[in-house]
Amino acid sequence: MPKHSKNLIDINCDMGESFGAYQIGNDEEIIRYITSANIACGFHASDPNVMERTVKLCKLHRVMPGAHPGYRDLIGFGRRFLDMKADELINDIIYQVGAFTGFLKLHDLPLQHVKLHGALYNYLVTDEDMLLSVATALKKAFGNPVFLTLGTAKMSRLKRGFRKRGIRLALEAFPDRMYTDDGELLPRKHQEAVLKDPDAIAARAVRMVKEKGIHSINNHWIEMDIDTLCIHGDNFESIEAARMMREKFKKEHIEIGPLAKIL
Amino acid sequence: MPKHSKNLIDINCDMGESFGAYQIGNDEEIIRYITSANIACGFHASDPNVMERTVKLCKLHRVMPGAHPGYRDLIGFGRRFLDMKADELINDIIYQVGAFTGFLKLHDLPLQHVKLHGALYNYLVTDEDMLLSVATALKKAFGNPVFLTLGTAKMSRLKRGFRKRGIRLALEAFPDRMYTDDGELLPRKHQEAVLKDPDAIAARAVRMVKEKGIHSINNHWIEMDIDTLCIHGDNFESIEAARMMREKFKKEHIEIGPLAKIL
Amino acid sequence: MPKHSKNLIDINCDMGESFGAYQIGNDEEIIRYITSANIACGFHASDPNVMERTVKLCKLHRVMPGAHPGYRDLIGFGRRFLDMKADELINDIIYQVGAFTGFLKLHDLPLQHVKLHGALYNYLVTDEDMLLSVATALKKAFGNPVFLTLGTAKMSRLKRGFRKRGIRLALEAFPDRMYTDDGELLPRKHQEAVLKDPDAIAARAVRMVKEKGIHSINNHWIEMDIDTLCIHGDNFESIEAARMMREKFKKEHIEIGPLAKIL
Amino acid sequence: MPKHSKNLIDINCDMGESFGAYQIGNDEEIIRYITSANIACGFHASDPNVMERTVKLCKLHRVMPGAHPGYRDLIGFGRRFLDMKADELINDIIYQVGAFTGFLKLHDLPLQHVKLHGALYNYLVTDEDMLLSVATALKKAFGNPVFLTLGTAKMSRLKRGFRKRGIRLALEAFPDRMYTDDGELLPRKHQEAVLKDPDAIAARAVRMVKEKGIHSINNHWIEMDIDTLCIHGDNFESIEAARMMREKFKKEHIEIGPLAKIL
Repeated sequence: MPKHSKNLIDINCDMGESFGAYQIGNDEEIIRYITSANIACGFHASDPNVMERTVKLCKLHRVMPGAHPGYRDLIGFGRRFLDMKADELINDIIYQVGAFTGFLKLHDLPLQHVKLHGALYNYLVTDEDMLLSVATALKKAFGNPVFLTLGTAKMSRLKRGFRKRGIRLALEAFPDRMYTDDGELLPRKHQEAVLKDPDAIAARAVRMVKEKGIHSINNHWIEMDIDTLCIHGDNFESIEAARMMREKFKKEHIEIGPLAKIL
Repeated sequence: MPKHSKNLIDINCDMGESFGAYQIGNDEEIIRYITSANIACGFHASDPNVMERTVKLCKLHRVMPGAHPGYRDLIGFGRRFLDMKADELINDIIYQVGAFTGFLKLHDLPLQHVKLHGALYNYLVTDEDMLLSVATALKKAFGNPVFLTLGTAKMSRLKRGFRKRGIRLALEAFPDRMYTDDGELLPRKHQEAVLKDPDAIAARAVRMVKEKGIHSINNHWIEMDIDTLCIHGDNFESIEAARMMREKFKKEHIEIGPLAKIL
Repeated sequence: MPKHSKNLIDINCDMGESFGAYQIGNDEEIIRYITSANIACGFHASDPNVMERTVKLCKLHRVMPGAHPGYRDLIGFGRRFLDMKADELINDIIYQVGAFTGFLKLHDLPLQHVKLHGALYNYLVTDEDMLLSVATALKKAFGNPVFLTLGTAKMSRLKRGFRKRGIRLALEAFPDRMYTDDGELLPRKHQEAVLKDPDAIAARAVRMVKEKGIHSINNHWIEMDIDTLCIHGDNFESIEAARMMREKFKKEHIEIGPLAKIL
Repeated sequence: MPKHSKNLIDINCDMGESFGAYQIGNDEEIIRYITSANIACGFHASDPNVMERTVKLCKLHRVMPGAHPGYRDLIGFGRRFLDMKADELINDIIYQVGAFTGFLKLHDLPLQHVKLHGALYNYLVTDEDMLLSVATALKKAFGNPVFLTLGTAKMSRLKRGFRKRGIRLALEAFPDRMYTDDGELLPRKHQEAVLKDPDAIAARAVRMVKEKGIHSINNHWIEMDIDTLCIHGDNFESIEAARMMREKFKKEHIEIGPLAKIL
């Protein structure tokens, strides 16, 4: 039995992805609607100045900060697979999360969680051994931050196994993404992969939390065991969806809280 | 009155400067003669894999680890001045030291000190305000590591001022470098700038520690208030100098200890 | 006596400064108003994909392409001085311009000119010897592209000297920038440094071309010997200024042509 | 019928892989034994200063220069696969080869050939369509340099097909590498993959040229249709092997010549 009521959910969003003179996203707007921030660490996006600014923004809005490491590939924004050995991968992650904790300590904030980015996120969903190695190294180095990853049937099973080792997995769903019958994200190449209508996205978010599931692209019911919803803030529609989601959550008595309260 | 006897000294050396397929230095050899290691953090040299290896090497040899951040300039090895604003500079340093602490925590080691590298080291020797800003930020973020910098008359004065603010400066001398009459390092463009004879280097090291001073290029006596000697390990002569220094220290009853014991 | 009539002018603009997932500028809009494009080469901005796209855009609009190399400093957008030796600087420029010519040849376009970027542009304005070394190397490697730099009294003098060596300097003025009494650009920290009013900018452009000069911040008349006007395209006002400038030029019978026709 | 006698062969070697303060290889030694140099272009190794030095070294020794582009992965030395789209890959190659031609033109040398590096070399051996796309773009941009790749049965077939399109493939064999029965390189993880004995390597080189084949790991005879031998210069044994190879070639009346004379 989960320790939290079924009506408590975290909302996470990727942030701090600007770089030097380059601006991306509407961090100052979307941060008003979330409880956990996944903050880029300088390999696939961001730089030390953006990291410091984003940590301060979290402090101002009382949003819990998490590290969001990716492949060392600025040009590809971390979206291209790079074939690295296990120890190389772990060292790249330790480096990025360590760098991030420097700014957290400068502003007296804890490291709530770690969420991998892009192609690295996708890769670790497919490799249980690597996932365990990475989560174990993060626990050893950073005092057991929550490890945030994709909510699937397989990950729910892993979550229980990892808990016995003292590792906390948090699982996320995407209200603006369509799912396959197997409970995987429908790849972006499909026309129906990403929902744009704010009202529909907000309605799906409510259902994911209250009914613990969602209908797939073929209208099959997929059960979900999720701790957090991932939202986006890069365009007007996504911010509008976030706003409506919070409104509906209030009406439906769904409480919003950071991962630390949920896991 | 210093809390340590005049015959206790730390020996520090830059390490972990290899990068990817590129090897530099003889870390496994020189580490046998030192008490404090200045470990590159990936901006001017090193990478996450080299950093992890070097931290493990310190643990094996019970050498105290320090972060050695530099300008983000791999091609120039951090030896070229880059005109950065104060906040950019501090953020680059926090990022690098933070990344380094990730590996320290992975291997359960403390951060003893921070020493800047190359052109960044040289620049901060000339700018007291920036030095104070950097040292203050490091204290805030990393629990007051020792800040290792060049031993000069001006720095001795700063050391006392910083101590009142709770910041620990450690000052270093270079037994293999010639000094000007003002107690500055004779620039490398001068023929006599760098000593090569291991015996002469070792003899100068003893004098620096026991007599608290050294003769300048023009044979003037320069007083020194130093906590640590910086040695090099990149060629056969420098390693031989290190070996002879340790031998002479033993004969002269000079004790070797890490900065933490000295400051 | 210049070989072109006093009513022929080139209009240049920095372009192709996007990077990976990051978009900057309105290249597709501003390119309609210019005759020469300064295209970033991947060190301070841009990447190979952006370079290829921008070269194709020039071809489509029959705008003459030039290389726009800068310091290797993506985070600082090439705006921070980096202390490089002469040969290092020249090699970095040859590398970038060479890379750029790869895309030109892929699309069968000539290299019209080279204009340095940001802190590198500013630095070479102050160092005649370095300017000559760079221009000489570019001539040797790339068949004598025009070298575009700041129009000042000193540069007009240099222009004549360089012409004897077979090097073509082109001088530019900034209709949206205020000038000091010495004919230098008023630094951006001054409130009046940058003009925003499209109508005023367009009027200044006409005066610069027809009257060969402009009034300084203190209302002194500064003579100008210019071949090209530099405009910007990063906001609505600057594009509106470009549009109005072209309109006024038409009324005033000022002809627009690429540098190759002017020098 | 090949236009060259069966006793004419090119010898190629990777060079110019140093980077900033980091030295790799013995370029000044190995260059005495080769006719074609594959010169790194700054993405997986090298920098603009090393490139310029290496081009000058080629000129001094009358060795024909070729570009040696790789993945943008300095830490991995270009040995890790990066999943790039076709146009991204082509643009990265055009950029690197273009940059290299800048130094060639500065020193008045032609671009003889292009050879891909590491994981990029391996990847294009497996993807005919990509190979054709890359070779076609190189022809368009750089006036038809020879494209140097691995000699296998499949590549011999491709070589004939490409010739009809006006693209020149040159095929290489590795005298210090063991081959599988299928004529592929035995992967390095096998103990017998790399030969170390200079005498054996030199003998295999002679056989490859005179008998147009070599025995595989299981003693099967593999036919070879090769234009060039790839040798290494990173250790004493490999340089000794190169020296002995040249000696044996002289005795056996095998002539050495650059690719341009052979294809």
